[in-house]
Amino acid sequence: MSTEPLKDEEIEQALKDLGGWSRQDDALVKTFQFTDFRAALAFMVRAGLEAEAANHHPSWTNVYNRVDVRLSTHDADNRITKKDVALAKAMARIPA
Amino acid sequence: MSTEPLKDEEIEQALKDLGGWSRQDDALVKTFQFTDFRAALAFMVRAGLEAEAANHHPSWTNVYNRVDVRLSTHDADNRITKKDVALAKAMARIPA
Repeated sequence: MSTEPLKDEEIEQALKDLGGWSRQDDALVKTFQFTDFRAALAFMVRAGLEAEAANHHPSWTNVYNRVDVRLSTHDADNRITKKDVALAKAMARIPA
Repeated sequence: MSTEPLKDEEIEQALKDLGGWSRQDDALVKTFQFTDFRAALAFMVRAGLEAEAANHHPSWTNVYNRVDVRLSTHDADNRITKKDVALAKAMARIPA
C-alpha cells in the first residue's frame, strides 16, 4: 500500500467515512471506551492482529476500559497515509 | 491487599527487589522492549490477565516493540501501594 502522505482533503474525506476519528497534528486519533478492562484488552488483541497482518502498528495507550489510539505512518515521516485509514477501518469492524 | 500508600523507604526497597523499575512521581514505571510487535502484544495479553486476576490495572502505552508501563493505585490517590509492587512482580515473571 502506498506510503505517500494523504492530502488534507483526502484526510477530511476519510474522517467523514470513518466516523468517530479525528485528526490531531499529523495523526488519526480515536478514544475507544469499553465496559471494562477485559473488553478493552480483547479489543487490543483483535486490533493488534489486524495491525500485525497489515504490518502497520498503532501507538496506543490503555487505562482500564479506555484505549487511546493514534495512527500515523513511520515510513512517511509520521504523517497520515492510506495505511492509517485502512487500520482505522479494520478497527471499526471489530465488535465492541 | 492494602491500599495504603507505601512509605518512601518501602518503595526504595521494592525497587531494589524488582530490578528494572524506577519511580516517576507517584508511580512505578518501566519500559519493556521486545523483539517485535507480536512479542509486545503477547506480553500485554499475559500481563493483562495478571492485572485482571488482581483487579488492579496498569496504565500503559505500546508503540511497536515497546511497552511503557506505569503503575499506581487509583484508590490510594494514584500513589504507589503493595498492589503496584505485586503487579510489577507478576510482570517480571512473564517470559520475554
